[in-house]
Amino acid sequence: MVSFESDYIAGAHPEVIKRLAETNLEPLEGYGSDKYCECAKKKIKEAVGKDNTEVEFLAGGTQTNAVIISTMLSDWEAVIAANTGHISLHEAGAVEYTGHKVIALAQKNGKLDSDALRVYLRDFSADDNREHMPIPGMVYISHPTEYGTLYSKKELKTISDICKEYSISLFLDGARLGYGLMSYDTDLTLKDIAEYCDVFYIGGTKVGALCGEAVVFTNGNKPKHFLTSIKKRGALLAKGRLLGVQFDTLFTDGLYFKISRHATDMAEKMKALFVSRGYKFFIDSPTNQQFIILENEEMEKLKEKVRFGFWEKYDGEHTVVRFATSWSTTENDLNALEMALDGKE
Amino acid sequence: MVSFESDYIAGAHPEVIKRLAETNLEPLEGYGSDKYCECAKKKIKEAVGKDNTEVEFLAGGTQTNAVIISTMLSDWEAVIAANTGHISLHEAGAVEYTGHKVIALAQKNGKLDSDALRVYLRDFSADDNREHMPIPGMVYISHPTEYGTLYSKKELKTISDICKEYSISLFLDGARLGYGLMSYDTDLTLKDIAEYCDVFYIGGTKVGALCGEAVVFTNGNKPKHFLTSIKKRGALLAKGRLLGVQFDTLFTDGLYFKISRHATDMAEKMKALFVSRGYKFFIDSPTNQQFIILENEEMEKLKEKVRFGFWEKYDGEHTVVRFATSWSTTENDLNALEMALDGKE
Amino acid sequence: MVSFESDYIAGAHPEVIKRLAETNLEPLEGYGSDKYCECAKKKIKEAVGKDNTEVEFLAGGTQTNAVIISTMLSDWEAVIAANTGHISLHEAGAVEYTGHKVIALAQKNGKLDSDALRVYLRDFSADDNREHMPIPGMVYISHPTEYGTLYSKKELKTISDICKEYSISLFLDGARLGYGLMSYDTDLTLKDIAEYCDVFYIGGTKVGALCGEAVVFTNGNKPKHFLTSIKKRGALLAKGRLLGVQFDTLFTDGLYFKISRHATDMAEKMKALFVSRGYKFFIDSPTNQQFIILENEEMEKLKEKVRFGFWEKYDGEHTVVRFATSWSTTENDLNALEMALDGKE
Amino acid sequence: MVSFESDYIAGAHPEVIKRLAETNLEPLEGYGSDKYCECAKKKIKEAVGKDNTEVEFLAGGTQTNAVIISTMLSDWEAVIAANTGHISLHEAGAVEYTGHKVIALAQKNGKLDSDALRVYLRDFSADDNREHMPIPGMVYISHPTEYGTLYSKKELKTISDICKEYSISLFLDGARLGYGLMSYDTDLTLKDIAEYCDVFYIGGTKVGALCGEAVVFTNGNKPKHFLTSIKKRGALLAKGRLLGVQFDTLFTDGLYFKISRHATDMAEKMKALFVSRGYKFFIDSPTNQQFIILENEEMEKLKEKVRFGFWEKYDGEHTVVRFATSWSTTENDLNALEMALDGKE
Repeated sequence: MVSFESDYIAGAHPEVIKRLAETNLEPLEGYGSDKYCECAKKKIKEAVGKDNTEVEFLAGGTQTNAVIISTMLSDWEAVIAANTGHISLHEAGAVEYTGHKVIALAQKNGKLDSDALRVYLRDFSADDNREHMPIPGMVYISHPTEYGTLYSKKELKTISDICKEYSISLFLDGARLGYGLMSYDTDLTLKDIAEYCDVFYIGGTKVGALCGEAVVFTNGNKPKHFLTSIKKRGALLAKGRLLGVQFDTLFTDGLYFKISRHATDMAEKMKALFVSRGYKFFIDSPTNQQFIILENEEMEKLKEKVRFGFWEKYDGEHTVVRFATSWSTTENDLNALEMALDGKE
Repeated sequence: MVSFESDYIAGAHPEVIKRLAETNLEPLEGYGSDKYCECAKKKIKEAVGKDNTEVEFLAGGTQTNAVIISTMLSDWEAVIAANTGHISLHEAGAVEYTGHKVIALAQKNGKLDSDALRVYLRDFSADDNREHMPIPGMVYISHPTEYGTLYSKKELKTISDICKEYSISLFLDGARLGYGLMSYDTDLTLKDIAEYCDVFYIGGTKVGALCGEAVVFTNGNKPKHFLTSIKKRGALLAKGRLLGVQFDTLFTDGLYFKISRHATDMAEKMKALFVSRGYKFFIDSPTNQQFIILENEEMEKLKEKVRFGFWEKYDGEHTVVRFATSWSTTENDLNALEMALDGKE
Repeated sequence: MVSFESDYIAGAHPEVIKRLAETNLEPLEGYGSDKYCECAKKKIKEAVGKDNTEVEFLAGGTQTNAVIISTMLSDWEAVIAANTGHISLHEAGAVEYTGHKVIALAQKNGKLDSDALRVYLRDFSADDNREHMPIPGMVYISHPTEYGTLYSKKELKTISDICKEYSISLFLDGARLGYGLMSYDTDLTLKDIAEYCDVFYIGGTKVGALCGEAVVFTNGNKPKHFLTSIKKRGALLAKGRLLGVQFDTLFTDGLYFKISRHATDMAEKMKALFVSRGYKFFIDSPTNQQFIILENEEMEKLKEKVRFGFWEKYDGEHTVVRFATSWSTTENDLNALEMALDGKE
Repeated sequence: MVSFESDYIAGAHPEVIKRLAETNLEPLEGYGSDKYCECAKKKIKEAVGKDNTEVEFLAGGTQTNAVIISTMLSDWEAVIAANTGHISLHEAGAVEYTGHKVIALAQKNGKLDSDALRVYLRDFSADDNREHMPIPGMVYISHPTEYGTLYSKKELKTISDICKEYSISLFLDGARLGYGLMSYDTDLTLKDIAEYCDVFYIGGTKVGALCGEAVVFTNGNKPKHFLTSIKKRGALLAKGRLLGVQFDTLFTDGLYFKISRHATDMAEKMKALFVSRGYKFFIDSPTNQQFIILENEEMEKLKEKVRFGFWEKYDGEHTVVRFATSWSTTENDLNALEMALDGKE
């Protein structure tokens, strides 16, 4: 059955698999010190285009969030996130497992509300009891957000300025970063992100890799003894090559961006299928995730022909569902979706 | 340069890569609920041949040790290990990061000394202050050990019996399990291990996989809500297929055992090269890791022609080094080693 | 200067100090196994009046919350609290430090909104992604709340019923329990609380003791090896007598209740002083904490004559402040307050 | 029955109780910001006699060890201790609960063996795998040790020099510091300790207080936001006065030292009772704890007349037991012991 259930339904981009096969028998050093990791880091730094950056690889999104947040926060600090943020809701308490609180603030369209952030930090600074509260040490945002939305350059700058004002670091979760950068409706570049954030990651798992996220520290701020801290969290792969070869491939000849653009194109076409048939959207998303409000009975019927993701109840008779494209989505998939929507076989 | 540095210098067994490529574009469910994971679990259960077993996949050895130990211990419990055990020494404090103490006891040839274990548990039980000490809740052993040695069936039974006497669970770290099972000098089978241990894992990373360890719970004792606990530790891969396909391949037609036997054969031949030239061994290992005592000057010379691992200082003039074979070791590699030992090009 | 800043501005009730002095040189066993601890536990059980209860002592409120929550939750569980709950806001992330998330839900008058609780648990149970979320394992409420308000018997039963429906334990933080029980506006008894809650504590620090909270497990559910878990958290006092003697005294001849009633009486008189002068209250509190909305300039003036606590900004020109009575508040204190309010010396 | 079971069998020194009573009703600020805490800190700094010191109070020994170690170590670091050290054995894994490994090294007479320390650090620095091991960040010693023994000035300097060479901080657990400083067999002063250690604590619980330890940071190295970190660990007392008044009293007119000297005098007399009767000592202790080897049958008889502590089995027929004096030991106690030893009523 055709599936739009998520952006991790397929393996890796075929070029990635090919390179894994080609390099497979080369004897390489372990733990990320091999030449492919080195090469991938170099290419990513070039793509980011900012001096003084450092790159490290981790295996998955929740792991990356927990490792970055817990190694960059001081003992007494907490991280701020939108109450819809991935770390607030869908990581099984992974950040809290490292001993740090996630302070959930209001969101707008899935994006952290900069007014709420400003008010929180201002009030915190003025609070006589602030020594009895975890001290905000980092702001976490995701881009695209969990709802597929994007921060504009101005919005990101605003949050970045607030963080600077309060000497708080800004961390951008880019699990789907490619799909954000290659949206037709964004003015935010990779370079901007490196400029405004202290640390961010370029998601691989959802954008062409079997697994892997590339963390970019943007101002010489990689935590000391980071490898030891990664190991301590059980997050160090013996065969670092698995991550190195994948990111080396993705950042050769712009593959990461090309396949992200493909997903965007597929999403736009998919969106058009829904729009032209009068479907209602839960939110206006310019990226690969589209959220549709389905009448429950129709949802049940559609389930028989196409796979998609349950998101949340809308009301007693409607449900919000997610259709996601990815680098692996094909025209055939869209055709199958179109037929399903039209009730054809 | 030919390398015997470790048993994780190569990628995956070519058959594994082939299957990853073949299944690559199939849309599959995430987080380990795909059909390849299911199939791999079934095959592993068959290989283990014991009722009431459950199998779960994790990405790496340190991660697996930390996840298993921390989800199976109660709050007040600690894990006992040989003072040379991997969790005692080389995991950057990953078990302690989960809040549990590793109690290090004496070893013999890299194996936990069962007499030391018995004495410790007896004395602990009689200690008036035992409520002020972490209560032993699990015994950790590795098989093969970090020194390549193996527990005999009798030795494992002895430890298992002690554990049962004190109601403590027994966990066997099988990061190199294949190389142990397919040694020519063992009477311990996979079935025995399942019989004597409460939980163990079948190592993939060092035995044919890019990454991945298959945890086997042997008596219906998989921790409740295990997926949530894995996620909470940042150890859940979105594309569980990466582990499922690899283990499915390794446990099809006995591939795991065949390639392990190959490593053993290569190790025996390698051993013969050293023996026939009068090299001294630090320990008598019947598995893929061989520990040689090299005179320091000779070590430096050899380094120019072949890669191997530093282990520890022996004395002022000698060093213990490790030569490891694996499924990827070839006759060519051995020829190159032979020439290096003989000072030829 | 007269102080209504908090309910922990004085030492212990004089009777408590007297008993500490009287018993001071008796040689006693350590770690809570002395006869005063035993006696205090017995008296508390009698006051609670429910079979199968167990009592343990800890030193302070945040410590108690962290110890109880982390020893009663399973690895994969989180605790639910009102977003104004002490554990949500004012404990520096102590619960998260133990590795568990605090899920903050809406409140009404400082009380956890039972509708919000019901909806959350219902939706959670229906959520396809619930395995990726921390599983609610406990509900935390405080009584009196941080705003001095009280749950009615019906309200507590409602929450208790919801917890039972979802097999979640209910924990009542009674840091100020005496002031709640002895309010003139409550229908909730100690026995009710023991009936509806799985665990609660009777606060000593704020109600007559130098330090100390008495935890009551209401149905044979004291965590196993609790002493070891307490020690592991650094919360075990060598001289357990310090807690035993205090609670023994407080629960002799109903002292705990008498001094709580005194605080209530003082609060009612204090309230009358404000009411008769037309002050506005931020919230209607029937206990020892009263929250007044002061015009900022007046607040500054009042500060020169009486101490009180800053609570939060009300608007640009007004501030919410807290005046707390306690067992130690005297008529003289009230007279001083009256004169301060009237601008007299 | 007369008791030498431990040095925490009595309450507080009567002068301490008196001051608690005298100051009891004064309204004071919470959380250690009261004037008695300030005053006590000042007096302790004067006693220590070193510039740039900072003093903070905590409630108990295990708590203090866990708080100090976990706030002073970096994420990737571990603490080194003698394998007989309190944190190695008798704190229920409290340090590990904070996520840090305790590396146990050899001891001599209960003291960390400086040769073992030097070798460990040298080998660690040379180990190719050191990034995979927790990095030593602190050395923990206790003075007096768990066996009542004392470091000489030279021994402490040696350890301090090693720590400096490897940029590791040195932490001295002074749970019984008074008894060490006032031994007749020591050349180590409080000033020396402040000179050689980065942080240490002056034990109150075992030396005259109901509870409380005074932590001294010796070179401006108090962790940032220390109060928040203390609160986060559940270790902040609302009524900080309880600790302030006690230490203020103990450091007024040298009370702490006088009562420590008294315990030493009592210990010397007690020792003489045993020596003159031909008892064998397990270890030669110049402080308040004496370890005697008793024949088991005699031990059982003695138990009926005097309380003492079980320490460890010596052999099949003998047991090591502990007799401790303290500030509260009286001549009457010694008389009773003498009669017990002589089999009189």
